[in-house]
Amino acid sequence: MTKHYDLVVIGGGTGGYVSAIRASQLGLSVAIVEKQKLGGTCLHRGCIPTKSLLKSADLIEQIKITNELGITDLEINFDYKKIVARKDKIVDQMYKGIHGLIKKNKIDVFNGHGRMLGPSIFSPISGTVAVEREDGESDVLTNDYVLIATGTTPRELPYLEFDNKIVISSDHILTQETLPESILIIGGGVIGVEFASLLSDLGVNVTIVDVEDRLLKLEDKDASRIIEDTFKKKNVAIHTSTRLVESDFTKNESSMTVELDGKSVEFDQVLVAIGRVPLTDDIGLSNTKIKTDKGYIETSEFYQTAESHIYAIGDCIGKLQLAHVATKEGLIAVEKIAHQTPIELDYRAVPRCVYTNPEIASIGFTEDELKESNTKYKAHKFPLVGVAKAVIENDGVGFVKLLVDEHESILGATIVGAHATELINELSLAKFLDVSMSEMKETIHAHPSVGEGIFEASLDALGMAIHK
Amino acid sequence: MTKHYDLVVIGGGTGGYVSAIRASQLGLSVAIVEKQKLGGTCLHRGCIPTKSLLKSADLIEQIKITNELGITDLEINFDYKKIVARKDKIVDQMYKGIHGLIKKNKIDVFNGHGRMLGPSIFSPISGTVAVEREDGESDVLTNDYVLIATGTTPRELPYLEFDNKIVISSDHILTQETLPESILIIGGGVIGVEFASLLSDLGVNVTIVDVEDRLLKLEDKDASRIIEDTFKKKNVAIHTSTRLVESDFTKNESSMTVELDGKSVEFDQVLVAIGRVPLTDDIGLSNTKIKTDKGYIETSEFYQTAESHIYAIGDCIGKLQLAHVATKEGLIAVEKIAHQTPIELDYRAVPRCVYTNPEIASIGFTEDELKESNTKYKAHKFPLVGVAKAVIENDGVGFVKLLVDEHESILGATIVGAHATELINELSLAKFLDVSMSEMKETIHAHPSVGEGIFEASLDALGMAIHK
Repeated sequence: MTKHYDLVVIGGGTGGYVSAIRASQLGLSVAIVEKQKLGGTCLHRGCIPTKSLLKSADLIEQIKITNELGITDLEINFDYKKIVARKDKIVDQMYKGIHGLIKKNKIDVFNGHGRMLGPSIFSPISGTVAVEREDGESDVLTNDYVLIATGTTPRELPYLEFDNKIVISSDHILTQETLPESILIIGGGVIGVEFASLLSDLGVNVTIVDVEDRLLKLEDKDASRIIEDTFKKKNVAIHTSTRLVESDFTKNESSMTVELDGKSVEFDQVLVAIGRVPLTDDIGLSNTKIKTDKGYIETSEFYQTAESHIYAIGDCIGKLQLAHVATKEGLIAVEKIAHQTPIELDYRAVPRCVYTNPEIASIGFTEDELKESNTKYKAHKFPLVGVAKAVIENDGVGFVKLLVDEHESILGATIVGAHATELINELSLAKFLDVSMSEMKETIHAHPSVGEGIFEASLDALGMAIHK
Repeated sequence: MTKHYDLVVIGGGTGGYVSAIRASQLGLSVAIVEKQKLGGTCLHRGCIPTKSLLKSADLIEQIKITNELGITDLEINFDYKKIVARKDKIVDQMYKGIHGLIKKNKIDVFNGHGRMLGPSIFSPISGTVAVEREDGESDVLTNDYVLIATGTTPRELPYLEFDNKIVISSDHILTQETLPESILIIGGGVIGVEFASLLSDLGVNVTIVDVEDRLLKLEDKDASRIIEDTFKKKNVAIHTSTRLVESDFTKNESSMTVELDGKSVEFDQVLVAIGRVPLTDDIGLSNTKIKTDKGYIETSEFYQTAESHIYAIGDCIGKLQLAHVATKEGLIAVEKIAHQTPIELDYRAVPRCVYTNPEIASIGFTEDELKESNTKYKAHKFPLVGVAKAVIENDGVGFVKLLVDEHESILGATIVGAHATELINELSLAKFLDVSMSEMKETIHAHPSVGEGIFEASLDALGMAIHK
């Protein structure tokens, strides 16, 4: 079948389907080409399933400390299958929701692998999308515009292929219905520490290895310290500044023996969480003039590729690989296509979240980056032990740190503690509007709320913190 | 002893001690007169102890629904004494913190009952504060300024005196180390519904009565509906549009029989939560020209009373009776005293929180109020079932509702759902800065976070909600 659309979106993940909906709102006829399921990595293999598991793990962790909460005689027998079932139920509910939205917005979905063609009988310019369906048939989607939103997939270690049994990715672990007794996590970035937090709360013996000198190297040092301290309390073995090589690994029938700091240690599974690679090698880029860098598609500030009618957004362009970034990039691209006047995205006004226990959320520059660039700033750190609601929630573990320039503007911020991933949204608004500390001081924060920590850190920047 | 201070604060509750700290920061010599404990109602008999108990109750409630979270074989035997002990520990920790702050800021504290004198040998103008100590001795504090922050106390029903056994106040219930089996709560305002939520989660048979046609009459109708529905599921008996009179009550030796909708019902305890009365009748107001209205002290917009050197803030002036309002009023008053130029408080930019399960938080006008005043507005309600993190947290119960005028400004907002009392802080900032919907649209909200509901409601106001 050949059909024409104003816009064809390749990839129905969060970035893709949201862009399609917005395009439809703007009056464009839209098709999505998706070879797996609408919702993509975020819904099926990333944000949503992990956060569902983390919610269950958090509850179990809270029950463990229930002596203080007054709950006695608890036998914590949890059934991991049920935890997985809840996760699947939530994912399925959201998945059905997306289908409803797609239908409501009159978007056509083509299930199959989409590839862009060069100039052909279908069009004098490149970008016509051929869809190879599972049944072997194919569709041809001519179009005025293409939006590439194909995302990424977990990166393998060259010498340690995923076998989906002993050596696994974050994709695979989310499909497992049982937990290993022990696991080695390679990589102390966001994905690595989230799984370390989740699995240790569920009673798995966790070892985490990273080449950097601390976990979460891209985040604030004090945040790393709190996570490392918390992990140590949970008996997570942390090996930073540690580079593993091929000869350190001996694969057994149902385990892996690893040479780690001079000792042989056996693990049921090895989770490789060393980053992700763009899914751009089989979408027909070579039929176009689109340029890539290490596989990531190069775009303008409005996500236009070297082909003026082809746009690309989300993880496959290699900016901040976060669902809310993909969404925003998609909205901007689509609005540009529809001749609106979108505002360029400031990547320093984008919140970054780590859903560990305690949570970490940040925005803008870190202190390391500011020092690196010789930017003048002052750090104002307010410990959450001074905020009653934070003490109620998790004994006040964590802090709010604001990095402020001489004009009272926020250059960066980090929150560690209860509800940090919700609190950061206020700072996102503050950063977007370049709110001054004097304005933050006038804003009434609810009492009691953990968010009072943001208020106190702002007061601290003005030399007038109350509870410090 | 006679001593002179730049400022004497009568009442060391949240409003009072925060004002004292700020005054000290501004270079004033400060004394606080407090007859009970620093921290006042909020710390000892209000916000903090109730929220600690609610946290424990919430955990128990979550365990009850743990079938879905995968935790099996749970015997929920909780020990209320331990829950109370945790509450006491948290209160004590914060109490010690306040003492540390007071010392650090070189503030003198006088324990005793403070009363203002008229013109006397100590001063030609009224306002000298005499402190009657428990040991019968007294101090005289001459001053340049007085700040009255004496707060309120629970209101009694004229025909049903508190006996602290069967008929109790919110003050008393927080001191109990045991729970009643059944309780009648008179009053469906914030205090009444918070205790109904808490006690029902802890397994108490709760009946709640209110003269209004719905619980939380001052909040959004849809919020009331969700709370009433939740209460019904927990077998809380709700009697709205019900006015009890003296003859409905028969006090037994250790219970109360109440005629309720034609039936005689016996309760172990009756919690009277019909509001609060100002503590202003024994602080020497008659020695001054200060005016009151039903006991509440009348002040200017900068909290100056009819005596230009005497200020009053917090619950005893009868504006919004919330700790964060008292704090803000205090900061404004003290800055005025210190010849700063504080900004007048907009009471419509103050968040209001109800810590029920689910939580409710609001700001500005309600729909009822806008209709009453014939103000043009549009309501944009986004159900949280469309937000993945809300589904993970509590099955997506709740909504974000923005009431917006024709200039895209927020007139009012209500959030019901997980973490609502944290989410409202973003809207507080938005309201203070009069952020438009178009600006909210550009603000990146973390994914997944419940706060995405605010983003979607803003999009809805622009006719472009994605997940609706």
